[in-house]
Amino acid sequence: MLRTSIAVLLLPALAAAQTNPAAHAAKQWRQQHEHAIVNELRTLLAIPNVSSDKPNIQRNAELIAKMLRARGLTPTLVSTGGGNPVVVAEIQAPGAARTIGLYAHYDGQPLDPKEWASPPFEPTLRNRPLEDGGTTIPLPAAGTPFNPEWRIYARGAGDDKAPIVAMLTALDAIRAAGLQTRSNIRLAFEGEEEAGSANLENTIAANRMLFAADVWLICDGPVYQNRQQSLIFGARGSMTFEITTYGARTELHSGHYGNWAPNPALELARLLASMKDRNGRVVIPGFYDQVEPLGPPERKAIADAPRIDPQLMRDFWLGSTDESPKGLYELLTQPSLNIRGMASSRIGAQASNVIPSTAFATLDIRLVKGMDIARTQQVVRDYISHQGFHVVDREPTADERRMHPKVAKVVFAERGGTVARRTSMALPIAQEVIRTVESARGPVVKLPTMGATVPLEAFERPLGTTTIIVPIANHDDNQHTYNENLRIQNLWDGIELMAALLTM
Amino acid sequence: MLRTSIAVLLLPALAAAQTNPAAHAAKQWRQQHEHAIVNELRTLLAIPNVSSDKPNIQRNAELIAKMLRARGLTPTLVSTGGGNPVVVAEIQAPGAARTIGLYAHYDGQPLDPKEWASPPFEPTLRNRPLEDGGTTIPLPAAGTPFNPEWRIYARGAGDDKAPIVAMLTALDAIRAAGLQTRSNIRLAFEGEEEAGSANLENTIAANRMLFAADVWLICDGPVYQNRQQSLIFGARGSMTFEITTYGARTELHSGHYGNWAPNPALELARLLASMKDRNGRVVIPGFYDQVEPLGPPERKAIADAPRIDPQLMRDFWLGSTDESPKGLYELLTQPSLNIRGMASSRIGAQASNVIPSTAFATLDIRLVKGMDIARTQQVVRDYISHQGFHVVDREPTADERRMHPKVAKVVFAERGGTVARRTSMALPIAQEVIRTVESARGPVVKLPTMGATVPLEAFERPLGTTTIIVPIANHDDNQHTYNENLRIQNLWDGIELMAALLTM
Repeated sequence: MLRTSIAVLLLPALAAAQTNPAAHAAKQWRQQHEHAIVNELRTLLAIPNVSSDKPNIQRNAELIAKMLRARGLTPTLVSTGGGNPVVVAEIQAPGAARTIGLYAHYDGQPLDPKEWASPPFEPTLRNRPLEDGGTTIPLPAAGTPFNPEWRIYARGAGDDKAPIVAMLTALDAIRAAGLQTRSNIRLAFEGEEEAGSANLENTIAANRMLFAADVWLICDGPVYQNRQQSLIFGARGSMTFEITTYGARTELHSGHYGNWAPNPALELARLLASMKDRNGRVVIPGFYDQVEPLGPPERKAIADAPRIDPQLMRDFWLGSTDESPKGLYELLTQPSLNIRGMASSRIGAQASNVIPSTAFATLDIRLVKGMDIARTQQVVRDYISHQGFHVVDREPTADERRMHPKVAKVVFAERGGTVARRTSMALPIAQEVIRTVESARGPVVKLPTMGATVPLEAFERPLGTTTIIVPIANHDDNQHTYNENLRIQNLWDGIELMAALLTM
Repeated sequence: MLRTSIAVLLLPALAAAQTNPAAHAAKQWRQQHEHAIVNELRTLLAIPNVSSDKPNIQRNAELIAKMLRARGLTPTLVSTGGGNPVVVAEIQAPGAARTIGLYAHYDGQPLDPKEWASPPFEPTLRNRPLEDGGTTIPLPAAGTPFNPEWRIYARGAGDDKAPIVAMLTALDAIRAAGLQTRSNIRLAFEGEEEAGSANLENTIAANRMLFAADVWLICDGPVYQNRQQSLIFGARGSMTFEITTYGARTELHSGHYGNWAPNPALELARLLASMKDRNGRVVIPGFYDQVEPLGPPERKAIADAPRIDPQLMRDFWLGSTDESPKGLYELLTQPSLNIRGMASSRIGAQASNVIPSTAFATLDIRLVKGMDIARTQQVVRDYISHQGFHVVDREPTADERRMHPKVAKVVFAERGGTVARRTSMALPIAQEVIRTVESARGPVVKLPTMGATVPLEAFERPLGTTTIIVPIANHDDNQHTYNENLRIQNLWDGIELMAALLTM
């Protein structure tokens, strides 16, 4: 969605800054093996990877294990509590004093195939983004270079199978160039990140020897919106909940009962509308109480980050943003409250003249450092009560509906959610990761936190380690929605970046 | 859904009031022919009657014509614009100074057979309502009386084939008793009422001589919720419209952009919530301006109507009603604004952590006498503009979305809608219909308007005539949904009522 104008402006200067020999070797290797690299990724993308699809999840894990074995590694599939397997492997560096972990996930978000321009698990090459009229093109013959602006469309292309192939290709490249890893390397590929990483922390806690590392680099998410490489030192947490409001027992004829029988869609609209002020700021009492303020280096990093709001608004067709004039990256350090989806009765050709019987909304809250999940749940529940609803956490009975003017079912996701984490940019390991990445990719945008949620606590809590997020995907990859895609140049850049990190 | 308690309480006293000789004759005739009457209805119900099913619609029309010819009448099938045939017939009364029209419709609502307890076009007798554990029973032998609480289940049983059989049985009865019709009678049976009566007005306008009458009695809809006979002197009109609000061009990751990118579901919620006050009254300026006040007889009629709100609330599982303490039948004389359906992104297992790209609501407005469709559209459009939206009537362009902080697409249904009609209860013909019906059925509940919309204007506009709605079906007939049914006693009552009207 981002036009190339900014990228064209900035990238030549940045590309010249590559001083890392492993990244350089990776570039040469990639130029000689583009067809094979893309084919390995396509094979991986062709296996459906929705977290709940156990048989296909298993096939993904086994293919990744096979890819690791092909590099002479000895992968292990570990899981706890009936969770999807985490594929782990180690690359030992004799005499190394340090261990670096590289994480990615192979599962993808749920989807509705009808919304996709091409089947989500038939990886499809296009000559430009679909939004800009991209059409399907065949794979070039082996030996013919890919246009770096082409894109591969498939679930998982950007989020988050590309880093897996980037890491393994980088390993091929540094070996071919006779370069050595200088730290012990651990690889871990998770299979239920998009389902909330329900078992990751337990799996790590039960297998500490397999996961022990001085830092875990979480290779997930997109680079900065101007295509510049970024490093992110934390992530917002997240929690989801669902609200159901109730009208009559069944749908009622809107003529015979319209403006007498209460409309649950209107009740829901009133409740949702009341949660934010006109400027988009949450007005639920207590919502911001636990937010931990940023320190000076984090405030400086935000001030230094290129301001991309006007360009993003153009690209996203937006005429306004919430909490203006605050910018995107300042707002991402604050918690958010978002309506993910909403439904009541039927729309379109199936709509009929009824008063709906129920209305439904699903929401997510992004938490920032300091916010507790249980307390945030309570703040939301209390607020809905104070709006006059009798709040229940399961289907209300007929008598409950008769006895209360307004009833809302409020159900929080069973596992609660994920809290936010933030690593200090001043740590020596953080500074070294910054230097290494800049030697491969030029100046990077450093951000205190990403808006999205990644399972940092699953590593940090059981291992007492620290985490840094290292993204490679394009920002306009349609991550989490239909027509997910990966820009070829981002894969190429990712390979060079991974080569630098593997030899750090 | 209404329990029988109210009915048991009130009906014995009312039944005693029958003074009409034709109604009395009809009762005697019915008691001697119950088996044949029910069988004629069952034969008619066995022909599928969904308005769009042209071959079966034709079979229905031809069977009704045959039933009319069996009574010595000369039916005509008329249609315009490819519409389904209206079956018309006349009963001339030599020297009559007046013509009375009796209307019913033989088509039924669309349905999904899977939702029905027995096939919708295999008329099935049950010993009580399905909701109360009713089971299928065989037809009693000829000569054995039917239990009046038994019910016939079939599409069209209550809405609206029962009045057709009631009229023809009443004609048999009065002839057998040697009674005469004193007015010319016109019968008209429509075949596309449930599809919106798209051709009825044109058919009447093109065949004025076949339809000319001093009053048309629209025999459709259910009697009052306490089972008491009702007469309704008008109907609300209706119009529908759809609102779409816009966020970013595509769904965005709610982590990466949540509390920066505006959420169209929240914008829609704010807009919908703002349209009514806490008590459910519409606050759109000008919405009520054209409402024509009720006259004294209408106000008295509403005050006299038995108050059934508490029982309805119990049956519908409602803990409150809009605009309380006003009652249902007072509110139905006011216009309504109703959210029919609402949707944004996905819910349930397919929900994902996105900021939706669009949000959608479909609404209907029920109009009352005096309200103009075009002006009501303008009032709504102006209101949405004043809420800060740039209002368009087709998909907004990228630049429109970029240039305006908020954009709403507002699309009104192409055919505009149906205006409300109301016949003055003070008219001599209205008073005479009331007297006639009360002589057959005891005190009736008189209502200035029904909440729903019926095609009164199709008769009133081309013919300059007036209309009164005369229902016979039970209120709990599951009209418009699955398991539609007719309570036997309502058919018996309907026959007596029709006999009185035929001899008016």
